[in-house]
Amino acid sequence: EPRYCLSLTNNKLFVISMCIAMIILFGVFVRYNEESDTRWIEHRRRKNISTNLENDFYYRYPSFQDVHVMIFVGFGFLMTFLKRYSFGGVGFNFLIAAFGIQWALLMQGWFHYLDDDGKIKIGVENLINADFCVAGCLIAYGACLGKVSPVQLMVLTLFGVTLFAVEEYIILELLHAKDPGGSMVIHTFGAYYGLTISWVLYRPMLSQSKHLQGSVYHSDVFAMIGTLFLWMYWPSFNSAIADHGDGQHRAVINTYLALAASVLTTFAISSISQKHGKLDMVHIQNATLAGGVAMGTASEFMITPYGSLIVGFCSSIISTFGYIFLTPFMEKTLKIQDTCGIHNLHAMPGVIGGIVGAITAASGGYQAAGLFVAIAFGLVGGALVGGILKLPIWGDPADANCFDDEVYWEVPEDEDENMLSSHPNMNHARGMPDA
Amino acid sequence: EPRYCLSLTNNKLFVISMCIAMIILFGVFVRYNEESDTRWIEHRRRKNISTNLENDFYYRYPSFQDVHVMIFVGFGFLMTFLKRYSFGGVGFNFLIAAFGIQWALLMQGWFHYLDDDGKIKIGVENLINADFCVAGCLIAYGACLGKVSPVQLMVLTLFGVTLFAVEEYIILELLHAKDPGGSMVIHTFGAYYGLTISWVLYRPMLSQSKHLQGSVYHSDVFAMIGTLFLWMYWPSFNSAIADHGDGQHRAVINTYLALAASVLTTFAISSISQKHGKLDMVHIQNATLAGGVAMGTASEFMITPYGSLIVGFCSSIISTFGYIFLTPFMEKTLKIQDTCGIHNLHAMPGVIGGIVGAITAASGGYQAAGLFVAIAFGLVGGALVGGILKLPIWGDPADANCFDDEVYWEVPEDEDENMLSSHPNMNHARGMPDA
Amino acid sequence: EPRYCLSLTNNKLFVISMCIAMIILFGVFVRYNEESDTRWIEHRRRKNISTNLENDFYYRYPSFQDVHVMIFVGFGFLMTFLKRYSFGGVGFNFLIAAFGIQWALLMQGWFHYLDDDGKIKIGVENLINADFCVAGCLIAYGACLGKVSPVQLMVLTLFGVTLFAVEEYIILELLHAKDPGGSMVIHTFGAYYGLTISWVLYRPMLSQSKHLQGSVYHSDVFAMIGTLFLWMYWPSFNSAIADHGDGQHRAVINTYLALAASVLTTFAISSISQKHGKLDMVHIQNATLAGGVAMGTASEFMITPYGSLIVGFCSSIISTFGYIFLTPFMEKTLKIQDTCGIHNLHAMPGVIGGIVGAITAASGGYQAAGLFVAIAFGLVGGALVGGILKLPIWGDPADANCFDDEVYWEVPEDEDENMLSSHPNMNHARGMPDA
Repeated sequence: EPRYCLSLTNNKLFVISMCIAMIILFGVFVRYNEESDTRWIEHRRRKNISTNLENDFYYRYPSFQDVHVMIFVGFGFLMTFLKRYSFGGVGFNFLIAAFGIQWALLMQGWFHYLDDDGKIKIGVENLINADFCVAGCLIAYGACLGKVSPVQLMVLTLFGVTLFAVEEYIILELLHAKDPGGSMVIHTFGAYYGLTISWVLYRPMLSQSKHLQGSVYHSDVFAMIGTLFLWMYWPSFNSAIADHGDGQHRAVINTYLALAASVLTTFAISSISQKHGKLDMVHIQNATLAGGVAMGTASEFMITPYGSLIVGFCSSIISTFGYIFLTPFMEKTLKIQDTCGIHNLHAMPGVIGGIVGAITAASGGYQAAGLFVAIAFGLVGGALVGGILKLPIWGDPADANCFDDEVYWEVPEDEDENMLSSHPNMNHARGMPDA
Repeated sequence: EPRYCLSLTNNKLFVISMCIAMIILFGVFVRYNEESDTRWIEHRRRKNISTNLENDFYYRYPSFQDVHVMIFVGFGFLMTFLKRYSFGGVGFNFLIAAFGIQWALLMQGWFHYLDDDGKIKIGVENLINADFCVAGCLIAYGACLGKVSPVQLMVLTLFGVTLFAVEEYIILELLHAKDPGGSMVIHTFGAYYGLTISWVLYRPMLSQSKHLQGSVYHSDVFAMIGTLFLWMYWPSFNSAIADHGDGQHRAVINTYLALAASVLTTFAISSISQKHGKLDMVHIQNATLAGGVAMGTASEFMITPYGSLIVGFCSSIISTFGYIFLTPFMEKTLKIQDTCGIHNLHAMPGVIGGIVGAITAASGGYQAAGLFVAIAFGLVGGALVGGILKLPIWGDPADANCFDDEVYWEVPEDEDENMLSSHPNMNHARGMPDA
Repeated sequence: EPRYCLSLTNNKLFVISMCIAMIILFGVFVRYNEESDTRWIEHRRRKNISTNLENDFYYRYPSFQDVHVMIFVGFGFLMTFLKRYSFGGVGFNFLIAAFGIQWALLMQGWFHYLDDDGKIKIGVENLINADFCVAGCLIAYGACLGKVSPVQLMVLTLFGVTLFAVEEYIILELLHAKDPGGSMVIHTFGAYYGLTISWVLYRPMLSQSKHLQGSVYHSDVFAMIGTLFLWMYWPSFNSAIADHGDGQHRAVINTYLALAASVLTTFAISSISQKHGKLDMVHIQNATLAGGVAMGTASEFMITPYGSLIVGFCSSIISTFGYIFLTPFMEKTLKIQDTCGIHNLHAMPGVIGGIVGAITAASGGYQAAGLFVAIAFGLVGGALVGGILKLPIWGDPADANCFDDEVYWEVPEDEDENMLSSHPNMNHARGMPDA
């Protein structure tokens, strides 16, 4: 079976070749900008800047760190909820985010930060934008969680970042739409990109790994670490690249209020919808964040404090009902298997955010066009990349081994092993034999 | 049984009605202040402010984020220590904190931030104060952990925030006492409020859920996440609304030193007090924080670095001995069941903090009066709210089902289930039948 | 057996006597500096400083908090990976860090911050430096994890901080070498200090606790909390005391890029090296951080973005291969038992960092001399302190009870107990009988 050997080689060499490619591309293209270079001192003198505090670093680094925590701990731990895929949840999130930020620095650099000398000049703002760009791919990962190989995730990220850089350029630079927290650019695009990939990769026999598709008690507590860090730092996410002064200030207040309303609403709807009035951890872990997603476009608009509460209220109602009714419907009827329910947390609240932006912005038509572009890039891009990922060369897990860390990780043998893991001689990826 | 139906309806509709009430009240009362409004630019021009950096946002947002993490991750994870109440610990903390900050913005707004036009004008400072206000209710939750329903917690928070806003007004505005880190206003009040409620709600047969009243290995590790984030960010808590310049700087140093001394002292006392010299995780999780509580009033005073060490040293000795001797005594003799031992972590160190403030402040008498007001509000308010919560309409758990997430949450079936949870047909709340 | 009694008394009284010693020494020596003292206002007037924002507090406090999280949550949770030593991992890390920062304020104060009046004047910069100093001892703890008593750790920290203050003084003040992120001063010194101690304390019969020397599924997830907070905040670590302006800005970018390359490289090498292409959590938890260690000396140098990627790439290759080949070799042949593999994460990447610094700095010779001093202090200091710790008075655990929290902690009885813990009547420390 030469295909297997190819796959095996692929898996092992793909990542290392990406390392080396990044070094070469950075060597050719990437340099410090005038605020991170020793030329800063002469730049200050030339521009008559009185203090080092005017270096962009001091404006943006705290926001950057909050966003960074959201990307690595927030997304990472939110995806640890499965009983036997916590290593893959937090670990592959780590892998593709660290890969994605390098590729994003290049892609966004070529589109936005190319200097006269043909070099990309980077500073702290680039680091924030790279985190934003990667967020789209991590959302897409949420739909595919447990069903794809790490190399497939690398490919998903490679193309995802590329598509992101283009749609972002069209929406923000050509259409001049506003989207500081990325309701459209990040959430809508990322969600439809991931959902379409998951649709192309549909697995009719996924019920073979049904016993691994739930959580255990402590994996749900781990996921709450992700939820809370996302929830707490979301005001930083939506304000990180907002206008200085009242713009950033208002973006924080609006996002904070929308998120507070989301929590209350999610608890209410979750309790109302269950037959014994019990709460569902899936809702609490996810729908409490819908207000942050939906406030991404309009975060710095004058939508008033109660307007923010209404946005959080509506988006969490739709998000929670999505988990209850839409996810099962999509899986059965539309053949879309959405592990984390990103349709409920990112797609619908993202579209709501885009619509809120179109209604409240002066240039509503361009905002609406932006939303359309984000959806189109997600759907078309997802179909293309899904087709590539369907090739039988990427070492994805067999249906019976989905949601199982055993396939890609050395898992410690512990007391639960015999109860939880599947048959030991079945733990290998498709196209990746033990040898 | 109409009372049960009422309760069932109550539980499901109470939260959603709160969402809507908040939207209406915010619509009537809450607006952006001049630093979070587009009027900021004209405000800058009028006041001759040279740079956006003078917007209060840039002074206070980093401190706010640290406090925010303490409220949601710190308090939330500290309460995950029980073997089968981790969902309730971190989840209900999330619910009541998100509810409380909305209600606090209104209550504190009416008392402190009402503008000439009858509107509450909010900015980042209000967000910090709302977090502070909610902290008092979360402390009270600690005494009731595992024994009350989410709706009871909402009621506890509704009244708790209201009482807080009044006592804070009396202590800070009328008595002009100093209390930047809230030893009196937050900790003393919150602790006596919660303890009195717990006393009113005394359950003589609580031993029926004795098998759920401890931790398991990993729930203790989860609780350390809460402990450490509280410990690390406490200097931000005690300095967030201290005076700019040396005031904030000194508040950080004093709190940092008191906390460092607390850790050492707690390890020493915990080891000395146990028969085999073994350490008790309950002490490490809690009494290591006593120095932060006790430094709340005097944080920005010139009490010298070694003065701070002494405060941390003394408060942790008292706190650790409290866990060893006082908690069992209070339960047996005073009929106060204090799940998290808030008497040891918040009440006694809070009173110490108030006394340290009264001794070291110029206006010691007013400080002492402030401490008295905080205790009185806690006791009287707790008795009243406890009486309300004793009504048999709130769906609180039966004695045998206390400390059990099964009552309010869909808990994943995992390998431990049969060993840990109580009989499946006993998992329902009082006044909340399965139907 | 009087030796046992002595030990028992020692254990219980050592910590409390340290508390009191610190209070006395702080009383004699430590005072606020002019920026954390009420004299700040007159200082401002005298120096014509226009705004409180110029108080060093506002420059450095956010960086300090990031470093603080690394020390307490980062190091602490990274050490929770063992199946039955998570309490000791995060708990003793908490103890010795809180003790170490107090002693470091004194030691570094005497060497660097002594005022004319014979007092140490402290501000926020001292707090950062104290955290740095403690990091060296926490690294050393990594080699000894599970094999030493808390009192031994206190002694290790007492001498480690002392040695650190001296070598730091020689390297930075006498040799004028650059080392803002401490590749040499912190990582190289700390690692060789810990490895030498571990070599002196070699336990030939350690295989008696072999059943406790691995992880369980969820302990590996806990460790990822540590890894991620270290990874995310490492740019703050390497830039916290770099030069204002472009220096700090560049230190962040360089560290961020080195770390991103490290993640990719570690995943690649880990997968290549395992026979079935599976990933090893030990590598992901540790070698992903090697780039941060290796960028410590040259963080603010103009080594270019691709230079940073190369540093991250090379250091993670060496680090991962170290875990695979060197750790077993060192244990078998060199008789060095290195629980956390600090040789791979700190020693080798630290030396790489020192060499990168020597190559890229103008004064390469002094940098190389600095590296030599760090190694020498680690080896000689470790041999001396190891000799002290070998005395049979410190209550260290028996070989069969290493890596077992039961020895020093009240461990909750849970469902796993019978499977994991060793025989109950064997759970006592050497020289520390149950009585």
